[in-house]
Amino acid sequence: MIFSRKIEISTHGELDFIDLTPQVKLAVSDSEFKSGVINVFSVGSTCSVIIMENEEGLVQDFKNIINEIVPAKHAYKHNEIDNNAYSHIRSSLLKPEVTVPFSDGNLLLGTWQQIFLVELDVSTRKRIVSLTVIGE
Amino acid sequence: MIFSRKIEISTHGELDFIDLTPQVKLAVSDSEFKSGVINVFSVGSTCSVIIMENEEGLVQDFKNIINEIVPAKHAYKHNEIDNNAYSHIRSSLLKPEVTVPFSDGNLLLGTWQQIFLVELDVSTRKRIVSLTVIGE
Amino acid sequence: MIFSRKIEISTHGELDFIDLTPQVKLAVSDSEFKSGVINVFSVGSTCSVIIMENEEGLVQDFKNIINEIVPAKHAYKHNEIDNNAYSHIRSSLLKPEVTVPFSDGNLLLGTWQQIFLVELDVSTRKRIVSLTVIGE
Repeated sequence: MIFSRKIEISTHGELDFIDLTPQVKLAVSDSEFKSGVINVFSVGSTCSVIIMENEEGLVQDFKNIINEIVPAKHAYKHNEIDNNAYSHIRSSLLKPEVTVPFSDGNLLLGTWQQIFLVELDVSTRKRIVSLTVIGE
Repeated sequence: MIFSRKIEISTHGELDFIDLTPQVKLAVSDSEFKSGVINVFSVGSTCSVIIMENEEGLVQDFKNIINEIVPAKHAYKHNEIDNNAYSHIRSSLLKPEVTVPFSDGNLLLGTWQQIFLVELDVSTRKRIVSLTVIGE
Repeated sequence: MIFSRKIEISTHGELDFIDLTPQVKLAVSDSEFKSGVINVFSVGSTCSVIIMENEEGLVQDFKNIINEIVPAKHAYKHNEIDNNAYSHIRSSLLKPEVTVPFSDGNLLLGTWQQIFLVELDVSTRKRIVSLTVIGE
């Protein structure tokens, strides 16, 4: 009923978007389950998993808006002991995970729904994404 | 362990709120599972599923605030090829899904928690919502 | 395959943060499942469950930012019949739940990822959090 896998991703700096959709599809396929859900969870308090269209202009638009919602410069108390308060807050708002259904072995995503790991920290990182398939 | 259903919803323009709670309850009931969770996932990159109180004034307040957080007018690059950049960004922030627990066959929602499909695109659409019950 | 528990939490006023991580770990342990996910769901339309680092300065930063994103003072229609429109809207944005994977009986959280119940209402409340472990 449960099939688990961890994948490692090298991100390339702040607001790097990595399209996880192929690896999420592969995990569903390798589980050999026909129907169920897959939980896609980013391990780390300064990254998130979201669903969006993979279009270059839109990705840039998203970056601009998140910079306005949670600005890089602000009187952040956490920055007295670190330098990435806004990375943490962005991650808490965007959340670390999505849970996506599948049927007949296929993810039930719309044509323009891709699953992204978003690097929210201020530098290049190695990230672990946990994929948990629950199905039958 | 898995019971799946897709429902089709006709939305009536931008920021239409459709209360899915009765259909979510029905899916849990039809599954005949006593305890578990139900994943409610909106197929499409310009809609979302959220939980909020179904009160007319509050729904209007939500619309006003989301218009402030992700404004309709902005220098969006995606709008060079389309007209709905803010719809995509709102969907990525609000996320396409919620996963709701149930016990003794009843959703564990608070009195004022209703499950909504929110149309974020700029026109009327037909939407598919995937309901996946995981339980026993 | 399903192990469910409800916990009751007394919150101490607006924007109180309660670290649920120990109780989430305990539920996974008590389930005796080795791998799967746990759904952590806050029952109530004016609270949320998020994941963030448990650092005092950062918690204060989060409160400041959420006050800017969804301001306490605004021309809220819901406030004609109640006093907490912004509490509801914050809850709908932050969402009531997270679903967290575990493996070998251990939550797959990063070092700085703690699971919080956030009180978004304007006063002290008693809250129910539903924990549903799905695993084997």
